[in-house]
Amino acid sequence: MKTVAVKKIERADAGLAEQLGQCGASTVHEAQGRTGLLKSYMRPIYPGARIGGTAVTVLAHPGDNWMVHVAMELCQPGDVLVVACTSDNTDGFFGDLLATSAQARGVKGLVIDAGVRDLVDLQAMQFPVWSRAVSSQGTVKNTPGAVNVPVICAGELIFPGDVIVADDDGVCVVTRKQAEAALKASEARIAREDTIRDRLAAGELGLDIYHMREGLASTGFDYVENLDELGSFNGIDCKNRD
Amino acid sequence: MKTVAVKKIERADAGLAEQLGQCGASTVHEAQGRTGLLKSYMRPIYPGARIGGTAVTVLAHPGDNWMVHVAMELCQPGDVLVVACTSDNTDGFFGDLLATSAQARGVKGLVIDAGVRDLVDLQAMQFPVWSRAVSSQGTVKNTPGAVNVPVICAGELIFPGDVIVADDDGVCVVTRKQAEAALKASEARIAREDTIRDRLAAGELGLDIYHMREGLASTGFDYVENLDELGSFNGIDCKNRD
Amino acid sequence: MKTVAVKKIERADAGLAEQLGQCGASTVHEAQGRTGLLKSYMRPIYPGARIGGTAVTVLAHPGDNWMVHVAMELCQPGDVLVVACTSDNTDGFFGDLLATSAQARGVKGLVIDAGVRDLVDLQAMQFPVWSRAVSSQGTVKNTPGAVNVPVICAGELIFPGDVIVADDDGVCVVTRKQAEAALKASEARIAREDTIRDRLAAGELGLDIYHMREGLASTGFDYVENLDELGSFNGIDCKNRD
Amino acid sequence: MKTVAVKKIERADAGLAEQLGQCGASTVHEAQGRTGLLKSYMRPIYPGARIGGTAVTVLAHPGDNWMVHVAMELCQPGDVLVVACTSDNTDGFFGDLLATSAQARGVKGLVIDAGVRDLVDLQAMQFPVWSRAVSSQGTVKNTPGAVNVPVICAGELIFPGDVIVADDDGVCVVTRKQAEAALKASEARIAREDTIRDRLAAGELGLDIYHMREGLASTGFDYVENLDELGSFNGIDCKNRD
Amino acid sequence: MKTVAVKKIERADAGLAEQLGQCGASTVHEAQGRTGLLKSYMRPIYPGARIGGTAVTVLAHPGDNWMVHVAMELCQPGDVLVVACTSDNTDGFFGDLLATSAQARGVKGLVIDAGVRDLVDLQAMQFPVWSRAVSSQGTVKNTPGAVNVPVICAGELIFPGDVIVADDDGVCVVTRKQAEAALKASEARIAREDTIRDRLAAGELGLDIYHMREGLASTGFDYVENLDELGSFNGIDCKNRD
Amino acid sequence: MKTVAVKKIERADAGLAEQLGQCGASTVHEAQGRTGLLKSYMRPIYPGARIGGTAVTVLAHPGDNWMVHVAMELCQPGDVLVVACTSDNTDGFFGDLLATSAQARGVKGLVIDAGVRDLVDLQAMQFPVWSRAVSSQGTVKNTPGAVNVPVICAGELIFPGDVIVADDDGVCVVTRKQAEAALKASEARIAREDTIRDRLAAGELGLDIYHMREGLASTGFDYVENLDELGSFNGIDCKNRD
Repeated sequence: MKTVAVKKIERADAGLAEQLGQCGASTVHEAQGRTGLLKSYMRPIYPGARIGGTAVTVLAHPGDNWMVHVAMELCQPGDVLVVACTSDNTDGFFGDLLATSAQARGVKGLVIDAGVRDLVDLQAMQFPVWSRAVSSQGTVKNTPGAVNVPVICAGELIFPGDVIVADDDGVCVVTRKQAEAALKASEARIAREDTIRDRLAAGELGLDIYHMREGLASTGFDYVENLDELGSFNGIDCKNRD
Repeated sequence: MKTVAVKKIERADAGLAEQLGQCGASTVHEAQGRTGLLKSYMRPIYPGARIGGTAVTVLAHPGDNWMVHVAMELCQPGDVLVVACTSDNTDGFFGDLLATSAQARGVKGLVIDAGVRDLVDLQAMQFPVWSRAVSSQGTVKNTPGAVNVPVICAGELIFPGDVIVADDDGVCVVTRKQAEAALKASEARIAREDTIRDRLAAGELGLDIYHMREGLASTGFDYVENLDELGSFNGIDCKNRD
Repeated sequence: MKTVAVKKIERADAGLAEQLGQCGASTVHEAQGRTGLLKSYMRPIYPGARIGGTAVTVLAHPGDNWMVHVAMELCQPGDVLVVACTSDNTDGFFGDLLATSAQARGVKGLVIDAGVRDLVDLQAMQFPVWSRAVSSQGTVKNTPGAVNVPVICAGELIFPGDVIVADDDGVCVVTRKQAEAALKASEARIAREDTIRDRLAAGELGLDIYHMREGLASTGFDYVENLDELGSFNGIDCKNRD
Repeated sequence: MKTVAVKKIERADAGLAEQLGQCGASTVHEAQGRTGLLKSYMRPIYPGARIGGTAVTVLAHPGDNWMVHVAMELCQPGDVLVVACTSDNTDGFFGDLLATSAQARGVKGLVIDAGVRDLVDLQAMQFPVWSRAVSSQGTVKNTPGAVNVPVICAGELIFPGDVIVADDDGVCVVTRKQAEAALKASEARIAREDTIRDRLAAGELGLDIYHMREGLASTGFDYVENLDELGSFNGIDCKNRD
Repeated sequence: MKTVAVKKIERADAGLAEQLGQCGASTVHEAQGRTGLLKSYMRPIYPGARIGGTAVTVLAHPGDNWMVHVAMELCQPGDVLVVACTSDNTDGFFGDLLATSAQARGVKGLVIDAGVRDLVDLQAMQFPVWSRAVSSQGTVKNTPGAVNVPVICAGELIFPGDVIVADDDGVCVVTRKQAEAALKASEARIAREDTIRDRLAAGELGLDIYHMREGLASTGFDYVENLDELGSFNGIDCKNRD
Repeated sequence: MKTVAVKKIERADAGLAEQLGQCGASTVHEAQGRTGLLKSYMRPIYPGARIGGTAVTVLAHPGDNWMVHVAMELCQPGDVLVVACTSDNTDGFFGDLLATSAQARGVKGLVIDAGVRDLVDLQAMQFPVWSRAVSSQGTVKNTPGAVNVPVICAGELIFPGDVIVADDDGVCVVTRKQAEAALKASEARIAREDTIRDRLAAGELGLDIYHMREGLASTGFDYVENLDELGSFNGIDCKNRD
């Protein structure tokens, strides 16, 4: 692969990114048609963080965080660092020093398909990270990768400048061009859900609100009165439970 | 398999379920002879919750939460939703809307061998969940499964109406018929442990309290004075550590 | 293997162990040349604990915690229990009773390549644990193992008397003989990082502080102005993102 | 749990078991309504074996194969040993000696949710095994479990006397009472598939044979001429591939 | 996401695809700059197959193989079916009937980030498959996905018409536009390696052939005469091994 | 860590190593007291290989096979290359060129806690490998590690010169000093097992040969006549199976 850094990238609008962040990963993922979600092994290092920012991307060699330093110079306020790795790796690519540097440049957080360390410091600094692992394992600076190139991170294609939305549910990517539409759809979804939430809280059922009963019956799905009537299920005798 | 919902189930006594919940998963698991424990990958989405309730069971198709809606109608106050899946899946079957509906019906929590989302909301609502994953991934409503049938969830057979005990240690199932005996045994265990705890806190050793020394010696287990006397262990020279 | 317990072990200096604990796992791991780190699947059961103590080691049979009771008698104030298993196992070897006993003897915490239970109690007691799993699953006392022998725990060789450093980042072992040098190197690293942190906070870049630019260029690493200039990367057209 | 062995069990008809074995795990699983399949981590130790027999079940403690010896005495020609474990374990519970004993008693094979060893011998003897692991790790005989009780093995409930069908695709259980119906359904499925296979081989499409086109269209599924017409998909520009 | 099938795709040249297949996944991956490799969990169902063909892509819902039927109609001789899934799934999407249909249309093989079944038949038919799992688990035909769209399969972006190279080492993708260059680079690499292989077989060392000694020394890498001179390594006393 | 290679190592006797190899991993592991076994994820790349040789050890950085080249120069006929990695990694460190070099120097095989590639060639050359993964992923030569130092590979401590025994069951290490005793114990075990095998083949039971009945009874283990007598087990009604 080319070992290269791209200096200037077109970023999604910062306001859109921030607002998408407020909508949250699950809402945005749904609103853009159930797309953009990174694998569920990407977990936050502490609960409660919620960010929306623009991606500065890194493709790194396993056990080597050189490219993170290169990327730092290219970060701007509102960015989110996104680190992919050429093969599965859990080493601690990033800790409190890099987080200090990142915060000095206005970076909102880190999404890394590898490991991170200095958790106590990162939480004290309120610098959020979504990672596949926590590990003290140190990294070297010997093998170049690439910065601000399209990467596949935790199963999703991410371009530099895309919007990254991350919270306790996980991480979702929105492309720069789709950011506005995704926000509109997210807000519509939130409004729609607010209404439904009220109805559910009042005791209405999803079965009725979403008109599911007919479709269900048409599949042959059936109701029986009790386990005695059912008799058995998947080879398990339902009539007798000790 | 039959695609069916069972309307009326016999539930374990609500008071017993509540009291078993207070005993906790580890105590109840031990008290009923080290049985009933779900696989340890089932983890709470936030710490500190402790519930005991009666199971309303769901068997779902991967990536499809239709049956959760069907189950909701059959839930009563004091129930715990238990969702099993026909194959391993981590999608986000359940979020804040379903939790709103569940709370409106008095459901105490969710145990799901799949994923869950809207973590911030669920914690704010104090609606506890034990799951194998957290994921924003949306689900469809196209393939029927079954509700209130016996299911195998995270390695344990669960009947509708069984007691579900869940806390930070994990999830344990108690059958309806055994609930009373399990509670009695749990309370006896707690009382017994209270005494032992005092003795341990005062410096007594388990070796003495449980009379282990003789049995140990009878296996040929031996004491040596120090590592020099041991010489080596499993091919490792014990006398030299750098 | 020999089933044996070693009664007297030489422990690292308690003060050194305590101070190494304050330095933290990541710093100590780096300071001693990126060595001593246990596998990253070893995670704390609650956040915020930070300990440094001397190892009392256990080699246990899967599903059998007999040796933990034997080890308890050999523990002294300042020790950390380290439990390895002859094969991969997640059962709940340790709970609040054993923790009570351990605290009565001045044990600082537990590092176990297996499971643990009674999480709520352990956190209330402030007895920290690093484990591969949380599980209520009960264990037996039938098969002897060994105590205070060299063990391989989560991928690292640990001798009784070694220093165990553990915090939210993970667990690191320092040999007794290297404890003093490791502390000196750790303190030097902390001092050095303090200076660098200030420079990074002021906006300087790692690229400059660590003089990376030349080395980078010498590898053939290159900068391009933008994605149009890059053209494509790893078969992905960089000029078009929808 | 009770530590007990059940001496006499009612077995499914041997002829039915044998014939179900010839149908294979995938066919039988489908024929009985997509039920009975053990988790897919259960893999054969060598390719090409295909068996159908009656289950003699074992519930073992991790790292302890005592119960396998107890079970052996209760085996009859045509049986399949089924070993479940009280917690996840990969130790080598079974090797060429136990296989010799098993073959001497007419046992057709082993299904074990743990490890196995002596692979070269087992293959030479043509004694097939489906397991979660291969491991030399030796086991002890210290902790009793149970024999010929209902067990949950690799996610499925298995009763002694049930039919076990296993081949390169995996392992499926059929209950004794359902064996005849399952065979009938399996044979019908095979016959039906033979016809369909001929049509597919002749170039007909599943879309037409199964009349899927209408259902597909009714979901809103659409055809476009080419990638240019599609434009983009999931945020990926389809018109440009480098 | 859009539920759609693209009818006409531009395929890489069939001859190039075939020749790339003969070069093998490892060579092609290296020749195109260490890119294009799918995750290593993608394994062949039987050893010895080696294919190169053009991708017809599928994006499927977990547990639902409807789209495979849709894709079949769009396959041509020389194609390779590539199936990605919207979330991790191991169900048996594909068996001997679909393989019969595929062979009738000239399809060379299947690459699927999910499960496959009927292994004995597939091997007898010599229809090779690379998958993440083997499983009998049946699938439904209820939820539409997409066909001939760009997909991310096992961590790599694959466009319809791309070249798929697969053998016992794994699966590699080459874009249509890069196929010719990749073949040239692969053949050059093979020729270069033939020469080196002869020299290595004759006893020359990679250290000399690749001129590594100087670079090695410049890193500070050192030679010592024996373990006594080394003294200790990573806290392990090298002078004493029992 | 020190980046260093040790030039001269003391090797276990070649004849002992060869004979231990013939005994096989399971026998040797048992004979030396159930020790020395590497984790069970280490699997052979093709079935049927069986080797015993002396270890030349490598500690490598993830994604970097430089040290394998350094090790090659230090290999002698009868050696087995043993490669450990500073963190979990699956890249393809070794392929047919390195195997050619290794065979030219008389190396018997490779044990690597990482990935390997060129499987077809390695099998054709009859160069056996035990690895955690198969992967085409290329590696670099940028970061030095160490050669002929003590390493922890797949959970076991291995010194250069130790005996490595590997076959289809897995990999076992025997220390140089214990090689002779281990062989004697292995041969005794084989002889003992030959006798037992004959008795088992003749229909005797392990229960009798090993005199287990009394010990079993003393634990309280019991026999019941049938499932009706048992009544229920682990909350499952034994009297009714559908």
